[in-house]
Amino acid sequence: MELIFREARLDDLERVVELIADDAVAARRTGTYGEPHLRAFEAITASPDNELVVVESDGAVIGVMQLTFIPGISRNGASRLLVEAVRVSSELRGQGIGRLLMEHAHERGRERGCVLAQLTSDKQRPEAHRFYRSLGYEQSHEGFKLPL
Amino acid sequence: MELIFREARLDDLERVVELIADDAVAARRTGTYGEPHLRAFEAITASPDNELVVVESDGAVIGVMQLTFIPGISRNGASRLLVEAVRVSSELRGQGIGRLLMEHAHERGRERGCVLAQLTSDKQRPEAHRFYRSLGYEQSHEGFKLPL
Repeated sequence: MELIFREARLDDLERVVELIADDAVAARRTGTYGEPHLRAFEAITASPDNELVVVESDGAVIGVMQLTFIPGISRNGASRLLVEAVRVSSELRGQGIGRLLMEHAHERGRERGCVLAQLTSDKQRPEAHRFYRSLGYEQSHEGFKLPL
Repeated sequence: MELIFREARLDDLERVVELIADDAVAARRTGTYGEPHLRAFEAITASPDNELVVVESDGAVIGVMQLTFIPGISRNGASRLLVEAVRVSSELRGQGIGRLLMEHAHERGRERGCVLAQLTSDKQRPEAHRFYRSLGYEQSHEGFKLPL
């Protein structure tokens, strides 16, 4: 299987929303494809610090993730790579695509001068936690969320 | 005590680094004030999605935090506020300054259209976890880090 990693285009967006929603934890909160996703896509495209990345195989988008490059004073002025919304098409899970997606994330992070990758994963996703630990991630932090 | 919340200026930076380093967990990794912090400050200032905020009292900088505004497709196209590097001067802790700092963060997030605030806190900081829960944060996620 040949995989192409590239930035998402507007005509990928409906599929991207479908991928993000195809998940037990996120389904009810992703919403149906529409105006809010279009506005979010425009904001991501306009931001120099954000990339929405898709992975394509045989012309089909089979995975997605969002990368944010964040400068910071902590850790001796380290820039960080934040990875969000990592998804692989449900029928293709367990084939190592997620691992390749994350390797691509880390490569993009290094290209942008980031020395640390970070992400959070819902406590309801123990398999995802094992996956991130298997990539070398340290499960060192508690993650907090508050609706504004 | 009258508090002023404002964006950090270059002449605050040495004090900001001191505040970030004055912490059992972060001390050894913050580094001594120098070139990497200056470069990071320039990158934060140049980014439309990042703000380094200080709190000032009687002309002295007594607290700091970094805010990042992140557009995203998940959660129906929600923008998120990421809060990092929250610190209050050690001799002034326990007086509610951290709470006011976080309220200011949430206000800035709402002004920027964010509907969710998120942060992570080292598992070695149980008091910080209690603090964030007391602000209404849900401790729903595991936080992962990987050096790149």
